[in-house]
Amino acid sequence: MDEKTLRALLARVKRGQASLDEAVAALKGAPFERLGDLATLDTHRTLRVGMPEVVLAESKTAAQVAAIARTLAARGPLLVTRLSPAKAGPARRAVKGSVYDPVSRTLRKGRMDLPARGPVAVCCAGTSDIPVCEEAAVTLEVMGVEPIRVYDVGVAGIHRLLARRDDLERARAVIVAAGMEGALPSVVGGLVGRPVIGVPTSVGYGASLGGLAPLFTMLNSCAPNVTVVNVDNGFGAAFVAGLVARG
Amino acid sequence: MDEKTLRALLARVKRGQASLDEAVAALKGAPFERLGDLATLDTHRTLRVGMPEVVLAESKTAAQVAAIARTLAARGPLLVTRLSPAKAGPARRAVKGSVYDPVSRTLRKGRMDLPARGPVAVCCAGTSDIPVCEEAAVTLEVMGVEPIRVYDVGVAGIHRLLARRDDLERARAVIVAAGMEGALPSVVGGLVGRPVIGVPTSVGYGASLGGLAPLFTMLNSCAPNVTVVNVDNGFGAAFVAGLVARG
Amino acid sequence: MDEKTLRALLARVKRGQASLDEAVAALKGAPFERLGDLATLDTHRTLRVGMPEVVLAESKTAAQVAAIARTLAARGPLLVTRLSPAKAGPARRAVKGSVYDPVSRTLRKGRMDLPARGPVAVCCAGTSDIPVCEEAAVTLEVMGVEPIRVYDVGVAGIHRLLARRDDLERARAVIVAAGMEGALPSVVGGLVGRPVIGVPTSVGYGASLGGLAPLFTMLNSCAPNVTVVNVDNGFGAAFVAGLVARG
Amino acid sequence: MDEKTLRALLARVKRGQASLDEAVAALKGAPFERLGDLATLDTHRTLRVGMPEVVLAESKTAAQVAAIARTLAARGPLLVTRLSPAKAGPARRAVKGSVYDPVSRTLRKGRMDLPARGPVAVCCAGTSDIPVCEEAAVTLEVMGVEPIRVYDVGVAGIHRLLARRDDLERARAVIVAAGMEGALPSVVGGLVGRPVIGVPTSVGYGASLGGLAPLFTMLNSCAPNVTVVNVDNGFGAAFVAGLVARG
Amino acid sequence: MDEKTLRALLARVKRGQASLDEAVAALKGAPFERLGDLATLDTHRTLRVGMPEVVLAESKTAAQVAAIARTLAARGPLLVTRLSPAKAGPARRAVKGSVYDPVSRTLRKGRMDLPARGPVAVCCAGTSDIPVCEEAAVTLEVMGVEPIRVYDVGVAGIHRLLARRDDLERARAVIVAAGMEGALPSVVGGLVGRPVIGVPTSVGYGASLGGLAPLFTMLNSCAPNVTVVNVDNGFGAAFVAGLVARG
Amino acid sequence: MDEKTLRALLARVKRGQASLDEAVAALKGAPFERLGDLATLDTHRTLRVGMPEVVLAESKTAAQVAAIARTLAARGPLLVTRLSPAKAGPARRAVKGSVYDPVSRTLRKGRMDLPARGPVAVCCAGTSDIPVCEEAAVTLEVMGVEPIRVYDVGVAGIHRLLARRDDLERARAVIVAAGMEGALPSVVGGLVGRPVIGVPTSVGYGASLGGLAPLFTMLNSCAPNVTVVNVDNGFGAAFVAGLVARG
Amino acid sequence: MDEKTLRALLARVKRGQASLDEAVAALKGAPFERLGDLATLDTHRTLRVGMPEVVLAESKTAAQVAAIARTLAARGPLLVTRLSPAKAGPARRAVKGSVYDPVSRTLRKGRMDLPARGPVAVCCAGTSDIPVCEEAAVTLEVMGVEPIRVYDVGVAGIHRLLARRDDLERARAVIVAAGMEGALPSVVGGLVGRPVIGVPTSVGYGASLGGLAPLFTMLNSCAPNVTVVNVDNGFGAAFVAGLVARG
Amino acid sequence: MDEKTLRALLARVKRGQASLDEAVAALKGAPFERLGDLATLDTHRTLRVGMPEVVLAESKTAAQVAAIARTLAARGPLLVTRLSPAKAGPARRAVKGSVYDPVSRTLRKGRMDLPARGPVAVCCAGTSDIPVCEEAAVTLEVMGVEPIRVYDVGVAGIHRLLARRDDLERARAVIVAAGMEGALPSVVGGLVGRPVIGVPTSVGYGASLGGLAPLFTMLNSCAPNVTVVNVDNGFGAAFVAGLVARG
Repeated sequence: MDEKTLRALLARVKRGQASLDEAVAALKGAPFERLGDLATLDTHRTLRVGMPEVVLAESKTAAQVAAIARTLAARGPLLVTRLSPAKAGPARRAVKGSVYDPVSRTLRKGRMDLPARGPVAVCCAGTSDIPVCEEAAVTLEVMGVEPIRVYDVGVAGIHRLLARRDDLERARAVIVAAGMEGALPSVVGGLVGRPVIGVPTSVGYGASLGGLAPLFTMLNSCAPNVTVVNVDNGFGAAFVAGLVARG
Repeated sequence: MDEKTLRALLARVKRGQASLDEAVAALKGAPFERLGDLATLDTHRTLRVGMPEVVLAESKTAAQVAAIARTLAARGPLLVTRLSPAKAGPARRAVKGSVYDPVSRTLRKGRMDLPARGPVAVCCAGTSDIPVCEEAAVTLEVMGVEPIRVYDVGVAGIHRLLARRDDLERARAVIVAAGMEGALPSVVGGLVGRPVIGVPTSVGYGASLGGLAPLFTMLNSCAPNVTVVNVDNGFGAAFVAGLVARG
Repeated sequence: MDEKTLRALLARVKRGQASLDEAVAALKGAPFERLGDLATLDTHRTLRVGMPEVVLAESKTAAQVAAIARTLAARGPLLVTRLSPAKAGPARRAVKGSVYDPVSRTLRKGRMDLPARGPVAVCCAGTSDIPVCEEAAVTLEVMGVEPIRVYDVGVAGIHRLLARRDDLERARAVIVAAGMEGALPSVVGGLVGRPVIGVPTSVGYGASLGGLAPLFTMLNSCAPNVTVVNVDNGFGAAFVAGLVARG
Repeated sequence: MDEKTLRALLARVKRGQASLDEAVAALKGAPFERLGDLATLDTHRTLRVGMPEVVLAESKTAAQVAAIARTLAARGPLLVTRLSPAKAGPARRAVKGSVYDPVSRTLRKGRMDLPARGPVAVCCAGTSDIPVCEEAAVTLEVMGVEPIRVYDVGVAGIHRLLARRDDLERARAVIVAAGMEGALPSVVGGLVGRPVIGVPTSVGYGASLGGLAPLFTMLNSCAPNVTVVNVDNGFGAAFVAGLVARG
Repeated sequence: MDEKTLRALLARVKRGQASLDEAVAALKGAPFERLGDLATLDTHRTLRVGMPEVVLAESKTAAQVAAIARTLAARGPLLVTRLSPAKAGPARRAVKGSVYDPVSRTLRKGRMDLPARGPVAVCCAGTSDIPVCEEAAVTLEVMGVEPIRVYDVGVAGIHRLLARRDDLERARAVIVAAGMEGALPSVVGGLVGRPVIGVPTSVGYGASLGGLAPLFTMLNSCAPNVTVVNVDNGFGAAFVAGLVARG
Repeated sequence: MDEKTLRALLARVKRGQASLDEAVAALKGAPFERLGDLATLDTHRTLRVGMPEVVLAESKTAAQVAAIARTLAARGPLLVTRLSPAKAGPARRAVKGSVYDPVSRTLRKGRMDLPARGPVAVCCAGTSDIPVCEEAAVTLEVMGVEPIRVYDVGVAGIHRLLARRDDLERARAVIVAAGMEGALPSVVGGLVGRPVIGVPTSVGYGASLGGLAPLFTMLNSCAPNVTVVNVDNGFGAAFVAGLVARG
Repeated sequence: MDEKTLRALLARVKRGQASLDEAVAALKGAPFERLGDLATLDTHRTLRVGMPEVVLAESKTAAQVAAIARTLAARGPLLVTRLSPAKAGPARRAVKGSVYDPVSRTLRKGRMDLPARGPVAVCCAGTSDIPVCEEAAVTLEVMGVEPIRVYDVGVAGIHRLLARRDDLERARAVIVAAGMEGALPSVVGGLVGRPVIGVPTSVGYGASLGGLAPLFTMLNSCAPNVTVVNVDNGFGAAFVAGLVARG
Repeated sequence: MDEKTLRALLARVKRGQASLDEAVAALKGAPFERLGDLATLDTHRTLRVGMPEVVLAESKTAAQVAAIARTLAARGPLLVTRLSPAKAGPARRAVKGSVYDPVSRTLRKGRMDLPARGPVAVCCAGTSDIPVCEEAAVTLEVMGVEPIRVYDVGVAGIHRLLARRDDLERARAVIVAAGMEGALPSVVGGLVGRPVIGVPTSVGYGASLGGLAPLFTMLNSCAPNVTVVNVDNGFGAAFVAGLVARG
């Protein structure tokens, strides 16, 4: 509530146009909805940060996911991430018209209706990184932004990446997922003049430390346009890239 | 070099309008300048990524910094970061008109002449984080983007942050530096619908692990619009935020 | 045995009112009970630290838990924690009247009869942290202290927490469970003038490091009223909060 | 601002007893004081969390410390921690009547005037832990709580601790500082029925990992009344113990 | 494409001996094959680095492995590593004549036809390291290099190793796999004047940290002829050893 | 082979009492037995280090364990450790008269016939540490040394340990297993004048880091008679304690 | 106090041969001496663990060391470790007849008068490990045990170690210090049938992690007679080896 | 000593052509030289591993370095590494004709006289990595192998590397030093068919973890011809590359 709205409200109280109860309610606000002790849904998040609350299903039960999804879907576009096939059923049934995709492990319904200034490229180093990229691509679609897929272009065969340079250059932001040594974001960052969002993936073994190795690689990038999100966090990368694309 | 330019060049070779030597030179290119075995300066970086090469002075000698700074300043705006007062002299003398700032530890000259769509907010949790923020603010200024300083608004007194909400909301991107527990980016991320770039700082002791603790905090942020750069990397955060602000 | 009791005992020996054997036994004491080589139960713990020995079932067999639970339940209130549904049967049958709760994974019987000076608030950042909170709530109830549940109020929607400020303010101590970035205890700590006990949870992925990331966040809290317990240790947090509430 | 105050304020607006400007000011509030871009002092912290803002001097300059100390001392008791002898001069001169102690590395003036229900014991394992304990003892004194010093009673000579049991038992809370293996809090925790606050110290070498080893020891304590603060954080431990002692 | 080839091509364009389309194709090249969005196979890798692309099956589905294997096998020798028995079927059926080995978990067909200057020794410390050694031995065979197996010769019985010294000395390079403390490469390195490639294995428990302990052991080797590859990476060790043996 | 034996052998060669082949064989020796490429058994280990080779079954197949056990049992006492019930069958059948114990997860047959100067105490902090202690106790028995079991005497109830002081004092060495915070070895070390061997166990959760936390605790012990072995390594602790007891 | 002494004391109380005050004093005991709040010296430690309290000077001031040394030297042999040359003066002057050695950084006076059953070997891998070995050798001498020095015999030239086998074999225990990869204890452990105590040293760089790499190497030793102490802890290793040698 | 030599020696003993003393000496050997307790120099190392013992000066005193250097220089080429300018004097004076270079921090005299089959390329990502590269280049020169310097060609400007492809391709092995994210070895590995030896450097800050981040990057390289040495270990990389170049 900004000062202007506040002054208007107080003036209406003063003039008797608003009751005390109305004013108290407006001033205390309640931009959330409680589902018993289960959840306190942040229903104003779209206004505030440009995207409805997204459900991270990983450590919730199938029943919890379904209950939350139903409430959110009644208010706008729905996106559930990290939803395993085994847990997807109840939520899919709870939200008529929702679509489940087993590669990206997402459930979604609807999309936001905001204009974007251009597409976002989604790159990955190897075939095994594709599920993370697809989580990003689906998120972009729900945000109303076009994803350009540039897959399996890792640095051990750098010519594969150079051949896709046109696709990179028309993007407003570039998401780069990579496991193992995680070097791809630095190389991409040296090629384009857009924000590059690195997504370390848990693809690898031994010294990849479950994704911490590529995470540290990306944080130390010598290309200054690289920022980083958590391991396997395709959703977060896409959300930020979508904000950039929207302007 | 895209296909169209390539075809044009080859056509000119065919027609005898371009000599073989010219064509070889154009095709092999050399968008860099070698300073003996000291450095291979990437002089086309502005065209490619929107910013000239920036000199990280930390592990270079004063003489190396001066030599590289002189070469770069002859071609465009100059920015040297992590330049300690003890090493600043030679570079400052080598580049006439350059300005050294001991708080941000930067040397700079000139600024880029590109339009920005709006300012960038630079926040920090505590007074000790200010040097990192100033490195970011100086970088933004060299990029031609206005910084809005929002300092000492850490989460243990959350009302200080809420009081600066207007400043946050007019920014195109928000940089948030924080040491110790590094919680501020998450809170800011929940308030604004813009990309938030978290900069963990090495402010703290013991379990702050030299900045790794706030780094991990930010990577795990529950606010999905937060991306992260390396510890104390004010420059990198500002570079990305500047790209977002330019559009 | 304090000096006064000691003098009294010696005086009784001197006067022949106590035999040597009695005195030796009293002086050597044995405030524990051995169950063969299986366990050495600390049966005087209630007197000493204000709570009977609590059984951590996690790395014990179902039979071991049942044997220990039976012995303890014969002497006072019983609390078994981290008892998976698969292992709960034998202990529940061994202690008539005991109650098993699958969310908190506790088995309990009875409660302590000590007065408390007020309630303890139990907060969490997200729905997935609820099992840890419920372990805390059950522990408080066995200690005879009222828990106030404040769930799903994480920092990405800070208004949800501010709306529950009254509940926080009437508590004698506040338990705050959070996974991922673990920022909630710092924000709560800045709002109340009571001890805040942070419980990092293992909710999260990748850079959450199985709960170490929120653990470090909380240890570095800039709010000075925050102390921390082990990852997912709802019981320990509740035990300390209960001691504070008792006074 | 609770609902009752809010209703009263709105009623006064309605009756014309309060002007719109007054009401706006009251509703927007500003419980802090800005020192230019240097600091945003949280001047209402005493009301909110029971202690004025305390200055952590470690990564501030001597001039910054002096400026902040002068402002805070004008409003109530002053405590500056981690202030090295080399930086103490300006702040001591800026605040007339302040006292600097080189062992605890604190500067202080005045004390709070709140009743405490009993003393707090401050224990340490070895002589080298004394500076951390003295930081805690000074903090308690500024809070108006009596510290009981129980020093050099580490677990390799457990009888030294047992001999001080009376001192432990009359305390409302016990602070236990220990470096190296950090085992003392567990042993103390098994002896008393009060909250025990473990302070790992950076005393040790090699596998002590700069205090992380005793930190992990304490977090894993089998005594359930132990909570933990950051390495060497005597101030934080004392602040929480003081809150417990005040009741 | 080196300068000489480039000049020749341009001269042919100038003389009309090559069409523009031919020249564009030659200059843009395309040494890879796209399988939809699934993979971008680097089909020129043999020319460039001396070995066809090898398939790491670990985080790919059985169907993905089969599709990629079929494409690669059509162009030269095939090697698939980390292929569990459960996933091997489809790929084995997709490539007629391929052989699956459950100990090394490899699928292969054919071998390279390049001369080697001598054999490569493959040593291991204990029986449990054999699967990693067999992955190395199979890789060497596909490269056309003879492996000498020297198994179960760990440092706790150093005479077992000394007895195999002749075998070590006729090798052009030595691969040494070891888990637990990983000391064997240092001892071997002190005995032979050839490159020694250490392969830490995940054999061990507790402080072996999943193979990180032997990894660090080998990186710190006081024998200067030791280099190291990732944990359990028998393939990588063999590939480098094979390059050395080929000359 | 010491110098005296060497001189004697050479003298016999000189005198024609030994053939060249005999001498070569004696000088090259072969105190091991190869089982194909499976294992190189160190059959002289008893002479050299006082104990036959012991089989660590953890990462071997049931068939490998059985083959190795059969060979070793033919030459002396047999001890197999970390043998899960699921894998025990073939080895038990391969060695007639062998005994499998599921608590310690050992298979054994026979015992060494060497005199010991006294018993070894085996202590643990909690019931969950018993399997590690039993592995130690069985190992001692195979070595011909008497174990004294002192179980469940953790530091949170220190009187339970003090009550067993007589048992500790008659031991030649003391093994102390502890998980969680691992403080028990320090306390025991302060009570007895014998070598104390700490065995960190993987009992615990969260910040116990799979046993690394108690490992570091023990390495930092302020009691100077404490040495440490790997996590859960009851066998190693017992082997060293047995050597001490033997003298 | 054992039961027999206790019965005798009580009998004397009963017979009036001991006053109540005498008995209380005897039963409460006080086997330590307080130096104000500076230290609580454990003056009965020799009786209990076989060695007087040893002073770790590292994080104490020169004045603290001198005060404690003077008190301890009045009661028996004195050993101060980790005493830098800069801090040694006051303690050396405080204890007449004490000797300071800058290589081992020890101050000592006198030696214990207990018989040993044999010498202890002190080995190291490289010249840089000698200070740690000398700390061990001095400690052994104060304990009355003969050290055998076997220096610079690292595993990259294993024949240097094999040539000293006689020295190793006459020792009752073997101390092995090694930095970098820390492999030497495993090799020594495979050669002798005595307890081997590994001392990781901080000699090395990069991946030696300040001594953690050799620490982990030794903990994972495949030689079962190896136990480990903290990084650079020559004193601790010698203390345990001395106990073994004494019997 | 191989079997053939052994048979010849024994035959000479038998025929009386060799005395027993001669044979004992030959069989016991002593391929090292003891400098008191200071060092046990491995003087046969050249024969065994192809390079004389090299002195790592880092944790030795100037006097120790000088003494060891003098002994080694009397027997062949000399190389001392990690010798700071402050410690170089005594060694340089001790070895007439030796040359000290402050960039690579090496002291050397002479070179080995063995033929190499080709040069070795030494690449680095940035100017700050040059000292490590120079240590490698000097080592190669002492081994008699030509180094090709390819400096400052990091992945953020990949065209700089591609322009030096000819230099890479004529090398027998390629050394690649890189700090920060350490991505360069993977890119080089994808370009050449030779062994690539990655040297992580400690250049960087924050999340570079003192060189551990690029170390892990290189260990996880998707280019299979990359092996890795310790942080900043230019010497080790060059030694292995030199062995490859020699053949």
